[in-house]
Amino acid sequence: MQADPLKKHISQQFDTELEDIRNRVLAMGGLVEKNVGEAILALVDGDAKLGEVAAHSDYQVNRMEIAIDEECAHILARRQPTAIDLRLVMAVIKTIADLERVGDKAEKIARVAVEMASQDRPGAFKELRYMGDLARGALHKALDAFARMDVDAAMDVVRGDDLIDEAYKGLTRQLITYMMEDPRNIRRGIDVLWCARALERVGDHSKNISEYVVYLVCGKDVRHTTPDEAQEEIRSNLR
Amino acid sequence: MQADPLKKHISQQFDTELEDIRNRVLAMGGLVEKNVGEAILALVDGDAKLGEVAAHSDYQVNRMEIAIDEECAHILARRQPTAIDLRLVMAVIKTIADLERVGDKAEKIARVAVEMASQDRPGAFKELRYMGDLARGALHKALDAFARMDVDAAMDVVRGDDLIDEAYKGLTRQLITYMMEDPRNIRRGIDVLWCARALERVGDHSKNISEYVVYLVCGKDVRHTTPDEAQEEIRSNLR
Repeated sequence: MQADPLKKHISQQFDTELEDIRNRVLAMGGLVEKNVGEAILALVDGDAKLGEVAAHSDYQVNRMEIAIDEECAHILARRQPTAIDLRLVMAVIKTIADLERVGDKAEKIARVAVEMASQDRPGAFKELRYMGDLARGALHKALDAFARMDVDAAMDVVRGDDLIDEAYKGLTRQLITYMMEDPRNIRRGIDVLWCARALERVGDHSKNISEYVVYLVCGKDVRHTTPDEAQEEIRSNLR
Repeated sequence: MQADPLKKHISQQFDTELEDIRNRVLAMGGLVEKNVGEAILALVDGDAKLGEVAAHSDYQVNRMEIAIDEECAHILARRQPTAIDLRLVMAVIKTIADLERVGDKAEKIARVAVEMASQDRPGAFKELRYMGDLARGALHKALDAFARMDVDAAMDVVRGDDLIDEAYKGLTRQLITYMMEDPRNIRRGIDVLWCARALERVGDHSKNISEYVVYLVCGKDVRHTTPDEAQEEIRSNLR
């Protein structure tokens, strides 16, 4: 973890504003993480009430996105940031777009949870819970890396995404078997498949957020590279 | 269509830069649109070679995204734009993120096309072509609205998204029937379902891009509102 490179402005007000958008991103991220966790729990436990709560909470995520976006536009117009301050604002604009999409996934899973609460449930729920833990864990670590501007932690999330993809593939195979056993399982199987897919996407968004952290700290855009290439980029930057 | 409100800077170089990022967004959008079209064609016609071409072309889309992103950061740092110029840069940063994701969908569809080219094919391909036309049409119109900064055209895309969602639901029902008829169809059916889902998402991204056009021209953030609420926002802005 580095010393906080943002703490350096003559204008204290500017410091406060930058600190404020960082905190708001973390608050938005915390809410999204909570919604993902509750949506999974509602699905796995067949808890329709919790599902309703998680689905309904997404409107708040959307409002946070719009408010932070506006604040970023204000900072750009008023403060005309450069270098790492500018990168922070750019990273925030991108991060909240990814968080908003994770929020959408949580809402979708929560709605499936509400629908399925009263139905017979496929056996794949244990694996879904495991996948949910992985995806939520990745999101948590990505937000943590953002909070501490920790490139190493961010790269751990990038590298860990393969694990979520593997879990997703395993779950898909299992669900296809479940559907082949009895055609009446198909509709339900597809619903669960959507949820697994949504979690796989949560992993992708967490990876995106982690890549913005690398950009923010190092000024290197490591999207669309392999983790090894990214690591090399970061190293060459520190030399 | 309004007169172009961006043509007003004393610095001709700044005009050129803004014009340049607009053109680059349109070039990126054109490539993405082409990839979506080719991916669908490859899937429907079972053309593995075309599928390979479309899948491979996505790396170019990713490179364009990174280059435009960098250019936006440079403009923000060097020109410190305000008002509509700042909104243009913000809209571009968001638009290319959506375009990049549409590119990913095209790549995924193209990969399914390659895999399925030698297999028996479900009957839902006519509907998939129809859905592909709708989604690609929405993307084309959204980019056109961006090019002409045309709020009315943008709102048409926002309103038209329901049509794509309906087509998606119809296709899903059809594919579930196809899978229920014979369990050996399940794997193939799910592959086609992913493609339909990807096209539905292309529609969503086109809607997002159209909402950025409204933000760019009117300064109103109409995301997460209904089309009617958005229209009211726009009207109140013109009063």
